[in-house]
Amino acid sequence: MNFRSDNTAACAPEIMAALNTVNDKPASAYGDDPWSRQLNEKFGELFEREVRVFTVATGTAANSIALASVTPPWGAILCNSEAHIACDECGAPEFYSGGAKLVLLEGAAARITPASLEEGVARNARGIHSVKPAAVSISQATERGALYQPVEVAALGAVAGKAGLALHMDGARFGNAVAALGCKPADITWRGGVDLLSFGATKNGALAAEAIVCFDLDRAEEVERRRKRGGQLFSKGRYAAAQLLAYLEGGLWLKLAARARLMMCPP
Amino acid sequence: MNFRSDNTAACAPEIMAALNTVNDKPASAYGDDPWSRQLNEKFGELFEREVRVFTVATGTAANSIALASVTPPWGAILCNSEAHIACDECGAPEFYSGGAKLVLLEGAAARITPASLEEGVARNARGIHSVKPAAVSISQATERGALYQPVEVAALGAVAGKAGLALHMDGARFGNAVAALGCKPADITWRGGVDLLSFGATKNGALAAEAIVCFDLDRAEEVERRRKRGGQLFSKGRYAAAQLLAYLEGGLWLKLAARARLMMCPP
Amino acid sequence: MNFRSDNTAACAPEIMAALNTVNDKPASAYGDDPWSRQLNEKFGELFEREVRVFTVATGTAANSIALASVTPPWGAILCNSEAHIACDECGAPEFYSGGAKLVLLEGAAARITPASLEEGVARNARGIHSVKPAAVSISQATERGALYQPVEVAALGAVAGKAGLALHMDGARFGNAVAALGCKPADITWRGGVDLLSFGATKNGALAAEAIVCFDLDRAEEVERRRKRGGQLFSKGRYAAAQLLAYLEGGLWLKLAARARLMMCPP
Amino acid sequence: MNFRSDNTAACAPEIMAALNTVNDKPASAYGDDPWSRQLNEKFGELFEREVRVFTVATGTAANSIALASVTPPWGAILCNSEAHIACDECGAPEFYSGGAKLVLLEGAAARITPASLEEGVARNARGIHSVKPAAVSISQATERGALYQPVEVAALGAVAGKAGLALHMDGARFGNAVAALGCKPADITWRGGVDLLSFGATKNGALAAEAIVCFDLDRAEEVERRRKRGGQLFSKGRYAAAQLLAYLEGGLWLKLAARARLMMCPP
Repeated sequence: MNFRSDNTAACAPEIMAALNTVNDKPASAYGDDPWSRQLNEKFGELFEREVRVFTVATGTAANSIALASVTPPWGAILCNSEAHIACDECGAPEFYSGGAKLVLLEGAAARITPASLEEGVARNARGIHSVKPAAVSISQATERGALYQPVEVAALGAVAGKAGLALHMDGARFGNAVAALGCKPADITWRGGVDLLSFGATKNGALAAEAIVCFDLDRAEEVERRRKRGGQLFSKGRYAAAQLLAYLEGGLWLKLAARARLMMCPP
Repeated sequence: MNFRSDNTAACAPEIMAALNTVNDKPASAYGDDPWSRQLNEKFGELFEREVRVFTVATGTAANSIALASVTPPWGAILCNSEAHIACDECGAPEFYSGGAKLVLLEGAAARITPASLEEGVARNARGIHSVKPAAVSISQATERGALYQPVEVAALGAVAGKAGLALHMDGARFGNAVAALGCKPADITWRGGVDLLSFGATKNGALAAEAIVCFDLDRAEEVERRRKRGGQLFSKGRYAAAQLLAYLEGGLWLKLAARARLMMCPP
Repeated sequence: MNFRSDNTAACAPEIMAALNTVNDKPASAYGDDPWSRQLNEKFGELFEREVRVFTVATGTAANSIALASVTPPWGAILCNSEAHIACDECGAPEFYSGGAKLVLLEGAAARITPASLEEGVARNARGIHSVKPAAVSISQATERGALYQPVEVAALGAVAGKAGLALHMDGARFGNAVAALGCKPADITWRGGVDLLSFGATKNGALAAEAIVCFDLDRAEEVERRRKRGGQLFSKGRYAAAQLLAYLEGGLWLKLAARARLMMCPP
Repeated sequence: MNFRSDNTAACAPEIMAALNTVNDKPASAYGDDPWSRQLNEKFGELFEREVRVFTVATGTAANSIALASVTPPWGAILCNSEAHIACDECGAPEFYSGGAKLVLLEGAAARITPASLEEGVARNARGIHSVKPAAVSISQATERGALYQPVEVAALGAVAGKAGLALHMDGARFGNAVAALGCKPADITWRGGVDLLSFGATKNGALAAEAIVCFDLDRAEEVERRRKRGGQLFSKGRYAAAQLLAYLEGGLWLKLAARARLMMCPP
């Protein structure tokens, strides 16, 4: 699965049209505009529950801010050794978290299993001398194009919950995953125990539109603060919001994802 | 001077047109595209010398990454007590620098003077018990709409150079400043000793286009690393680059700035 | 008040004797020894309530770890502009907290007042664009030798509590303060709302013995983690613990402080 | 090799005597005393060249400060997967460096080889998307009691130099290593390319005495700043310095190490 290639595709015409439409209307700054205010509602409908949504500039920012919000500096984030957060973000999760450690787990097709997660937790359960496992991050679809079925997410969520770990999902390709699995977005996120989702649209037809979706509402203030502090709060947030709204409108995101699905390896 | 208001204005038609044009052409990801590659050249022409240019998502990111690249964690950044970096970025410079300290200087119209800069340096020259002055940041125009004449920038640059400080300029309103001063961009930047410039276009007609301009080429690698690590490297960097190219093309930026100039208070 | 001078005095003979005594007995490492285990109990007696005590190497470490445990990276720590944490720790509070900002308050004799505290909070209550006031730190006695009466600590504690701020006390000279005020240690700490105390013994007769005293027991785990992570957990913790036990034994600390009291300016 | 056990041993009588002697003499604070001033000279004699020596409270602090001084926040520190810095310091290297990443290498007896080092460098040579290899850390003796012969240190130093990496040695058991190898201290440090050494005495007879020895003199200022900022500059530094001087005096450190040598596994 070549992440790079998807960044070379043009934006969907519907998304470009939305940008042009926004531009013709008056607005306020820093997210206090009609488009930004709709995000929570529209994503709430999509996920069948209350959520808080925060736009950011890149998938790296979404992952790092989300993880920092559930991981203390002395915490460990468990993930597959091929995860984007481990290999391709130049240490952004370490930066945003203030120096948390990524504990790497092996697993086929860049996936992790409940057993490998349990092992990783046990390996670091050594009191104050080792870092404290605080979060686990899974990519849906993974960096090798593999998927987690809803029941598999739930199994990981159960291990995470038992170990006191937050569960984060890197959804840079969330649209591809939902399209390929034919499930509801809720089935592979909060119903399975996901606390925070990096929801990516850039690789699937947007210009620059990534978002952090908080199912754990108690984390929303921290996410918002870390976003501002990371220089990720767009002054003209309406353009990012409008991209996401157009992306969801009428199921556009799934149509775009279906087209790209063929690039994915079998799970 | 109401910064917020400028973020409510629509993008310039020329910039929207540029986005649409980019969208019709094939491209590569992460800045390896014709638009991104032109940035160094076009900004080099504008500033009459070799530069390195890095796009980021927000002015806060531009300021923080630039300052972190010239300030060690135990360093001090001197600035006016009303500076945007001190009051309106939720501690982003502290975050990006790993905990540097902002030393606040008083000054009319949010400006600093050579004398106040010298005083601020002296106040912190106490060996390893105090932080070490490492950089000074000035806003052009300032948060109260005041300007620094070329000779005033040079005077600050001389004090900075003597004290071993890097000189950073927050140019969120750089276009307004150049239009109002009627000078060349070089006259209020590197010719006066500015090492790094936060070049803002968003408040002056772009959608989301901010850039760090490095005159100190030795800092370029660090800026690039910190940008990636901050989640500020757009995967589809061509859209940000295209906005900036359109912004410069034919002096559009100065035409847009001239229109906005009337909002500025007298220096 | 010359802090430096007190560091030139010899250790009290009772404390040297304690070190020699410890040395003659078998022990365990990393605080799992009889001396370390007694710290919570003996300090609990001293403060007339349950506490958690953590030894560290320096007063700077005590202050920084305590403050980091109650201040998020995007938080503000309010203190007098002459506070040791602001002027003499080379940015250690910023380092340990991950980049929190010190907001400086003016005040005679390096003290702060309820009014100045309220003003400082109000100045920074601007939503996500400014840092969030999270803690206030007072020095007892202050860097200029001034004291806070019990009723004054309580007044600051009330303002802090109302504003949602943790209250930290830098007690590098706590012994001098208690001796001069003739009060109980509890009267100027937790009874007045102090959550965390940096308890210093080095300037008052010990070799190297500083401690963080947690009245807010919920902070204890975080303090312990941050101590380890800061390289402040002595492998042979029994020597630091023994110094503190000897320091408290029979009121030695107050006798030593009474001797030094004469160096203090009037409040 | 049980590191914990060595922390339970009593201090050497010579070291206790030195503490008592210091206590009988007048002194200055913060390292401006006769004992502290002798450190550079005495360690210079020991290592047969000019060095800068900085005392700190723990081995964790020595390792973390040394590594942070040669690793940018976006850098990688390569080490064996069983290294103390990776497993037993609660993320202190990540903390002090501002979020650098530890890249783990496999190797028998907790050692690393030139080949594994080269592989680790190559694995992370992917431009700005991955962290940048900046330092390698080896433990002498290792956490499993294995040694590096002088020629082996030099081989690692050659790989490090070619790859642009600083070479750090965790010498928590440096005395044991020198005693067992029967070599000169210089032979397994700077002659082999070591830039910075964590020199431990606590596990070998001192009360609390660890030091960072800088062979790369250009790093000395940064080490000194980071030490202060980490709360690791003892106000009464003469007691730490006196322990180290007594430790070296007449080869005491090697006599103590020879006694402990039998606990070490064969290399």
